[in-house]
Amino acid sequence: MIKRSLALAALLAATSLSANTPTPPTRSVEDVADIALTNDQWAWDFVEGITTEVGPRQAGTEAEKRGRDWAVAWLRNAGFANVADEPFQMDTWVPGDTHKAEIVSPFSQPLVIQPLGTSASTGPEGITAEVVEFANVDALRAAPDGSLKGKIAYVSHSMTPTQDGSQYGFAGPARWVAAGIAASKGAVATVIKAIGTDYHRNPHVGGTSFPDGVKPTPAGALSLPDAANLERMFDRANGQPIRMKLTLTPRDLGTTTSGNVVGEIVGRDPSLPPVLVACHLDSWWNGTGAFDDGAGCGIVAAAAKNVATAGQPLRTIRLLMAGAEETGLWGSKAYSAAHIDEPVAVGLESDFGADRIWRFESNFVESNPDLHAKIAAAVARFGVSNGTAIATGGADIDIARDQNAAIIDLQQDGTRYFDLHHTPDDTLDKIDPDQLRQNVAVWTQVIGILAEKPREILSPK
Amino acid sequence: MIKRSLALAALLAATSLSANTPTPPTRSVEDVADIALTNDQWAWDFVEGITTEVGPRQAGTEAEKRGRDWAVAWLRNAGFANVADEPFQMDTWVPGDTHKAEIVSPFSQPLVIQPLGTSASTGPEGITAEVVEFANVDALRAAPDGSLKGKIAYVSHSMTPTQDGSQYGFAGPARWVAAGIAASKGAVATVIKAIGTDYHRNPHVGGTSFPDGVKPTPAGALSLPDAANLERMFDRANGQPIRMKLTLTPRDLGTTTSGNVVGEIVGRDPSLPPVLVACHLDSWWNGTGAFDDGAGCGIVAAAAKNVATAGQPLRTIRLLMAGAEETGLWGSKAYSAAHIDEPVAVGLESDFGADRIWRFESNFVESNPDLHAKIAAAVARFGVSNGTAIATGGADIDIARDQNAAIIDLQQDGTRYFDLHHTPDDTLDKIDPDQLRQNVAVWTQVIGILAEKPREILSPK
Repeated sequence: MIKRSLALAALLAATSLSANTPTPPTRSVEDVADIALTNDQWAWDFVEGITTEVGPRQAGTEAEKRGRDWAVAWLRNAGFANVADEPFQMDTWVPGDTHKAEIVSPFSQPLVIQPLGTSASTGPEGITAEVVEFANVDALRAAPDGSLKGKIAYVSHSMTPTQDGSQYGFAGPARWVAAGIAASKGAVATVIKAIGTDYHRNPHVGGTSFPDGVKPTPAGALSLPDAANLERMFDRANGQPIRMKLTLTPRDLGTTTSGNVVGEIVGRDPSLPPVLVACHLDSWWNGTGAFDDGAGCGIVAAAAKNVATAGQPLRTIRLLMAGAEETGLWGSKAYSAAHIDEPVAVGLESDFGADRIWRFESNFVESNPDLHAKIAAAVARFGVSNGTAIATGGADIDIARDQNAAIIDLQQDGTRYFDLHHTPDDTLDKIDPDQLRQNVAVWTQVIGILAEKPREILSPK
Repeated sequence: MIKRSLALAALLAATSLSANTPTPPTRSVEDVADIALTNDQWAWDFVEGITTEVGPRQAGTEAEKRGRDWAVAWLRNAGFANVADEPFQMDTWVPGDTHKAEIVSPFSQPLVIQPLGTSASTGPEGITAEVVEFANVDALRAAPDGSLKGKIAYVSHSMTPTQDGSQYGFAGPARWVAAGIAASKGAVATVIKAIGTDYHRNPHVGGTSFPDGVKPTPAGALSLPDAANLERMFDRANGQPIRMKLTLTPRDLGTTTSGNVVGEIVGRDPSLPPVLVACHLDSWWNGTGAFDDGAGCGIVAAAAKNVATAGQPLRTIRLLMAGAEETGLWGSKAYSAAHIDEPVAVGLESDFGADRIWRFESNFVESNPDLHAKIAAAVARFGVSNGTAIATGGADIDIARDQNAAIIDLQQDGTRYFDLHHTPDDTLDKIDPDQLRQNVAVWTQVIGILAEKPREILSPK
């Protein structure tokens, strides 16, 4: 952070004076957004900094704590007010050191695997069992009770890239629920084809789950080339059983402390409910959390900063960099519980990478059509269309849903998101600076408009 | 191999009768090559089979032995004559189990690393030292003697993709010689930016070397995103020392047995020197050896098979699937030593992936311009141009160079070769079946012509 932040602090010195003056903006938000499109440095500085100086930030660990400390320092350095690390308690799982899957017969070779969140450990000695193949979760569901006793379930899927990311819902159950279903049918472990769309030997991890009363088993994700190799083995084994030695050594650490990092651009009228902009600071242990979600935090912080450079906004812009999103939305829930009595005007989150925003949605197209139309018109010049879906918001703005507040979704292009999601490959080099700045420009435009609205956003009187 | 090979054996049964009849081909090599372009299954069957049923084949290990056994069975099954595994002795190095590089200060995070061939071990406890950055090997060479005492040298490069692969020569020294240079200046270890052109967290490994009298040190390659991260740390550390804990546990196994797998399409006149077509069977331990060089073995075997389907060729076509190429061309040298008194007519090798052949070169453009022109004209329809360079041959045809024999190079498109070379990502899914078949078609055409030449190829009387 050292060199660049000094330069940014110098830049900031020139703008923070005006932000401290309680007068309406002297520069239009349109101008500020246009400048951001070609010149924004804040978002890149944030994501470069946190991926380089902190790296992986597994929820509940000391690495996540270093991420919070880093973000607190960055936000203070960038001139945000009321910066704090609000602690909460959580159940913490860590991946351990040994992640191996070896086919032992009939075709001996190692496959690349990583454990899923909440996976049990095989112990360092590993377990060896026959693998039973399922084309998808529905096929697994159809297996008779007890039929997997002593076996390792392998569950595949057929995910393809989609711009709106909707195939995550189609393929995701192989990660979310297959291990629990297989365990309930007697499986000693579950191995899935990683939920992703790339062809690199970097597994996509993420959480899995076990129903109440079902003891967690070891569960891991094979990289897509390794899953394809295992499937070819089934094709070529001529009915011979395929046996795998699986060694995964994750651990539960019990209850640890995580936290939500917050900060504000204080508005001219702090009595008005704030505009809440959110992202999450934690990442899976195997990547550096660039796309997921260092970029999102950079985007929302940069946009808030850019709005402030135009002059002090009417409403406060509140930044929530949530902790422990990946392992169960712990930070979002804790934030809502702690602040439920403090109304927010509107909630928005950035957590789908760093590619171009292509569609705008709100949940007030009927209750406040003028504002919806105004925002849609304002972002059209950035190539953002007006969507027909009703915004439901991201994972980290539980409070907006819990308060039935206004919500906006600024939908990013997800075509390559699931090439990188939850993989070691989630690194800074995957971020296209031009597309990152387009995000910042759109966000600057949108929250600049929202922060100047004196009346309620969802149902204006 | 089971299911598919049965089908192929059935196909073969229909063609092998004609191959046993000592009459000239009844079908033109042009026809056979054209059919291969759209229909060849042999090359894919070989590379799918060996990557699925064997996987990684590190030189000198039992895995390489399984690869040879698999190839011997495949060749016999495919109707090749005189199939054998010709043993030789070699010095064998294996990577061990622990491959870690952790930055411990000022920015703590793990980096993805794998050991280079001949790397020494740090021991399981690892070593921790300050890292000194060099932009390239020339900068390392310029460091004063003794200046790296107690340090870890980090050596970068600036390789970009090239169709002819020529930037391997430009960037490769960072892998080939940097560790030896750094060790001679007192470094306790060397870490390089992997020699490659991709951005995935899969290091490119390969051999390094230490000069006589310089004790080998630990040496590893960071994936390109990790190398970029380390370089950003230097940019952001503001002069603070960057300390790394490095743990690499490779081992030397001493002398072990490897082997060259050979096989033949016996010609109508076995007294004529054979056409030698080569590839290598071993791969680095971290990938499955699809591009490097399962595809090459599949291409040359398929082409030899295809020529035989046209009828028995005049000259014998001899296949050399060399062992232990990656760790020092042990198989090529052993083959030349064992067979130096048996002249070969011409040598060709396929060992540059599975992408399209785009250029033809020979070393007889002056001594046998008619044959050179005939081959160039015959492959033009496959999009192969006539190159101006003099062919020097691949690594596995030492015998052709040692005998001053004719040599042909069928240059493949290397644009993405160094995205995959020596990485875990060298898997079957990277092979484009259409381009693989173009290789087979060109090879079929070329060796079909060569195998019908009654006179010497290099200097016809």
